[in-house]
This record gives sequence, C-alpha cells and structure tokens, in this order.
Amino acid sequence: MTTKMRSEIAEQPAALRATLDSLLPRVDEVKALGERTRQLLFIARGTSDNAAVYGRYLVESRAGRLAALAAPSVATTYRRRLDLDGVLAVAISQSGRTEEIVETLAWARDCGAATVGITNGGPDSPLAQAADVALCTVAGEEKAVPATKTYTTQLAALAVLALGLGAEVDAADLQRVPDAVEELIANPGDLDAVVEGLADKHGAVVSARGLAFSTALETALKLKEACYLHAMGLSYADLLHGPIAVVDAETPAVLVAAENSPTLAGTVALAERVVAAGAAAYTIGGGATLAKAGTAALNGPDLPEWVAPMGLIVPGQLLTEALARRLGVDPDAPRGLNKVTQTD
Amino acid sequence: MTTKMRSEIAEQPAALRATLDSLLPRVDEVKALGERTRQLLFIARGTSDNAAVYGRYLVESRAGRLAALAAPSVATTYRRRLDLDGVLAVAISQSGRTEEIVETLAWARDCGAATVGITNGGPDSPLAQAADVALCTVAGEEKAVPATKTYTTQLAALAVLALGLGAEVDAADLQRVPDAVEELIANPGDLDAVVEGLADKHGAVVSARGLAFSTALETALKLKEACYLHAMGLSYADLLHGPIAVVDAETPAVLVAAENSPTLAGTVALAERVVAAGAAAYTIGGGATLAKAGTAALNGPDLPEWVAPMGLIVPGQLLTEALARRLGVDPDAPRGLNKVTQTD
Repeated sequence: MTTKMRSEIAEQPAALRATLDSLLPRVDEVKALGERTRQLLFIARGTSDNAAVYGRYLVESRAGRLAALAAPSVATTYRRRLDLDGVLAVAISQSGRTEEIVETLAWARDCGAATVGITNGGPDSPLAQAADVALCTVAGEEKAVPATKTYTTQLAALAVLALGLGAEVDAADLQRVPDAVEELIANPGDLDAVVEGLADKHGAVVSARGLAFSTALETALKLKEACYLHAMGLSYADLLHGPIAVVDAETPAVLVAAENSPTLAGTVALAERVVAAGAAAYTIGGGATLAKAGTAALNGPDLPEWVAPMGLIVPGQLLTEALARRLGVDPDAPRGLNKVTQTD
Repeated sequence: MTTKMRSEIAEQPAALRATLDSLLPRVDEVKALGERTRQLLFIARGTSDNAAVYGRYLVESRAGRLAALAAPSVATTYRRRLDLDGVLAVAISQSGRTEEIVETLAWARDCGAATVGITNGGPDSPLAQAADVALCTVAGEEKAVPATKTYTTQLAALAVLALGLGAEVDAADLQRVPDAVEELIANPGDLDAVVEGLADKHGAVVSARGLAFSTALETALKLKEACYLHAMGLSYADLLHGPIAVVDAETPAVLVAAENSPTLAGTVALAERVVAAGAAAYTIGGGATLAKAGTAALNGPDLPEWVAPMGLIVPGQLLTEALARRLGVDPDAPRGLNKVTQTD
C-alpha cells in the first residue's frame, strides 16, 4: 500500500510548477512592499518555521536585508508593542488558520509593519485575509500529517519573495527546480542503507549550515514527528559548541550541504570528525566530495545553492516515510498530532 | 570528591554580586548607545546563545525594541554586508576569544551597527577590544567545561543592558538575585527523584516559553554536554507543532516556568498533557501550581519574572552535575569538548 505521505512527496514537481506559475507574475507586488521597508520579520511555527529559516538566510545572503524570526509570545502572551516601522512581516502557515500566527501578523501590522502571508489555505483563509499581500501556494490538499508538498511550495513562495526584494540571483534557476525534484524522487541514492542504519537508534544529529540549515531542521522535525526519533537539528557551528558530546556509535549524524555552497568544506570536515568518533555519517547532497567523507549517501539536486533547499529536503522526506514504515508507524497519522495545530 | 562544576555552581551568588557591582554603575554608557539605535542584534553560540535568547525576550517584552539573533554565517561564510544602521549589535562570548563571534561583531560595526561585547575574558580580550562598550562579567576563572557561573553572570549583564535601554522594570529586583540563587543551591527540591528518573533514559524534552525559554534551552544543552542525554530544548508552542510525537513513557519532559509569568498556565497544561500520555513531567519553578501538575518538582527562585532566569537555571545545573556523576561521566571534562570552542 502506498501511504498518503509517499503520494504527496511524488506530487511535489507538479505542486512546485503550479505554485511558480501562480506566484512569479506577482513579483512586482512584493517589490512595492520592499520599496517601503528595509527589514524582514518572519512569523511561523513547526515546518513553516523551518521554511522561514530558508527565507531568512536567502534574504540576508542574497538581498542584503536583515531578517529576524519573530517570538510570537511577545505579541500573544506578553502583549507588548514593538516599533516595526520599516519592517516587512512575513507570516507562513500551511493551513492559514493557526490563530497564534494570524494574531501575530495582525499585531505586526498594528506595530507599523507591512505584511505578507504565505499559505496553502487559499485567499479566503484568515492568514491571507490579514495580509497586505497573500502569496498562496498551489500544493493542493495535503492529507498526511507530516507536511511535504506544502513545505517545498512555501520555499518556492519565499524564493519569489526574495526576487521581489532584489535578490542577486538568476530567476531562471527556479524553473529547473521541479525537474530536479522529480529526478531525486526517482533516484534518491542509498536510502535502504540509511533506513537500516537508523532503524535501531534512539537519536540522531542532523546538521548543516547557512541556506541548508533549514533542510537540517526540517529533516530532523520529520524524523521526530513520524519516526519518534530524537533527531536534533543544529547548525554545525552550534553543534561544535556543546552538543557534539552526544555523538557516539549509537548516535549517527545526518549531514546536508548543497554541492556548490561555501558551507560544503565545513560539512565535509564534520563528516570526517563524526566517522573518526566511531559514528555513522549519512550525507545528503554535497556531491561526490561529501559522499566520500560519509558512511552512506543520499543524493542532492543539481541546482544552484539558493534554490537547492527545495530539492535537498526530498531525500529526507523519503527517508522519513520509509523509516516510519520500517518501524511499524503509520507516517500519515503519527501519535499526538493533528493536521492543524492550534497554539496561542 | 567535589567536582569543579559543583564548586562553580556554588560560586554563583558571589559572581553575581561582583558582576552587578561592576556593571550597574555603567548603565549610562548603554543608555548612550540606546539613544542612537532602535533595535538589537545578538551574536553568540552555545551557552552564550542561550543567554542571548534571554536578552532577546527581555528587550522585546520589557523595553519594546525588536531584537534578533544573528546568523554569523552571513558574515563569516557568505561575507555579505547588511544595512545595520540603527542596530545595536551585542556579542556574547565567555572567553571573548571565539573568532567567529569577534569577526561577526566587527562585521556588524562595518555594516553601521553600534556594538556591545559581553564577556568573562576581561577588557583585554579580543571581543572587549572590538566593542564600543565592553560589559565584562566578574565570574572569575571557570574551569569546568560546562559553563555555569559565566552563564548566570551573562544574564546579569543582559539585565543591565535592558535597564540602559529603558526596560520598564524595577532595577532593585536585581539586588535580590544573589540571595535567591543561594537559597536554591541550598534547597533545590527533589533532585534525587529527577536524577533517578532520567538515569536510564536516552532522551528528554525540555520546554518553556517566553523569558524562561532561555532556561529550557540552557538546561537541555547542559544535559547534552555533560550527560550525553538527547535533550531537546523547545518552546512549548513549537513542541506542540510536531515534536510532541516523541514524548512517551521512555521520554520524560522537563518543564520550566517562573511563578508569576503569563506562560505559567500553558506550562501547567503541557505538564498535564505529558502525564496523561504516560510520561514523567519534571518541573522547575512555577510554584505549587506547576509542582502539583508534574511528577517531581525542582524549586524555582522567589523572584519577579524578568530576573527569574538567573535562578531557574540553577536546579538544571545541579541536576546535570548529579546526573553526570550518577552515569559515571566526569562533568568537568565531557568527551569531545574544550573550554574554548573555535568555529569560523
């Protein structure tokens, strides 16, 4: 039986094409907001927060604008106003119905921010309604609890946002993404070895840096949600400041890098250190250089770094789905979770 | 034999008094920087990054200024300039010698930011030398690898910073902190029960929200560093967006709240949910209300919320030191770690 999660992973090339077709013509709307702001503030939780991490690195490293991740409790729990003049607040929610996120975006507008909503919930969703500009992803309904196609299409919307903010990139790279994702689904690399390597483990470290840090966080979240694995997503710089102590023969590392990234050398060095410590290092992307340094390798996309995270997550999604089945968990409906999470 | 870590935990009341005596007279220097800036950008790694999380929530919730955590790789790996006009960059490093942090602060100044350095490395350390204003903590030399007194004195320096930025708090509350910490060291609550509860576990979730979120992150980092426990530090809102799936009878939760915090009700609700799922919920602080909802309780300080994190971490430090010894690990020198971590 094919799980819903597996079907939705396979729907990503089409979902990405539809989303890019819908949003690329709207770059000028973002540009207008960019002209009256200097900075970004992302508002999100869970998988959407991992997408925000991609948006943050993309906007800072390619568009030269300071970008922060909001602490929603300042709005919803402490109920404190901040001076958000000159800030573009970008809220991201799959459903567009998480009250905490909608409320924090409304708070940001009251504090003087311009606002964007990114959601798969459609133009009538509360989040789209609350935003100056709504960038609706076109992923179709997502039924499995672990988000896949709604996540990669959020990344596509954030790439469009970055174009509107003047990112120094080649917009044509975006058109290569759907095919690259399709290729990865067909040929993800040594998935069986990684599934077997994680099947009897309690925990793992998932690490990357820069733009691919978002992929590490999202891979770790998927493994926690659907495989109940204690997977810690960390920047490799943060990992070396303490948590590296947990890495031993019983704690493998999953390491992610784009092939043409300035973070590749550091990721290779970390893979060598992990292997030298007697642990397994499973690699995602990074080409032959990273694959050679690790224990078993999953493929990355043949894409420039700025769009690579839309592909780099795909082997992690396939790994999660296969490992959950291997462990006897239904990946479509993990314990303790609903499709729409309400927090306040 | 008393470990160095245990001795340094006990030195915190004196270190806090000395640090407050040294830094409180310098509030006006911070005020001058505050008058020419609108926002904060914290630059830190590891334990110092957890201190930055406290600084961020304190400055936003009490001083009404937007505060972000920097992504150092934008400076050191991507080498991208941002527009930091109107930003006060605050770098935090125990040693004052982590190159990545010093380099990122210098980058921030080049990008137009005013700069503060918070370090225990003294006025001659590279970080202090690179900053417009250096707030040197007076913790004395710290020998154990897991930071304790250098962390709580960083929080004290951040509290002084917040006063300089016009935080709407009673500065006199700070004078109560050293005695409250002393009281907690003498009377931490049911430490033995929590040590025994964690001794045979592979992982744990450590959660809080708002100002105490920093305490959850730092408690989790200590447990990873010195006990090799897969301890995940999470905001309780983020926990509910996915990672709650890992909580089962084999995965206890450690939940932290200040007694008089607007986050207390949510923390109590989470404790009840964890216990209902068949897992143990060990509580830190939150008074009788939170203690009653959990499985075993560690005490919190009798302090207002804004200064409570300087006390709330103490039971977590004592827990880490006792659990490490219980597991046969020397807490002073965990595997894979040095006292000064260099990242680039």
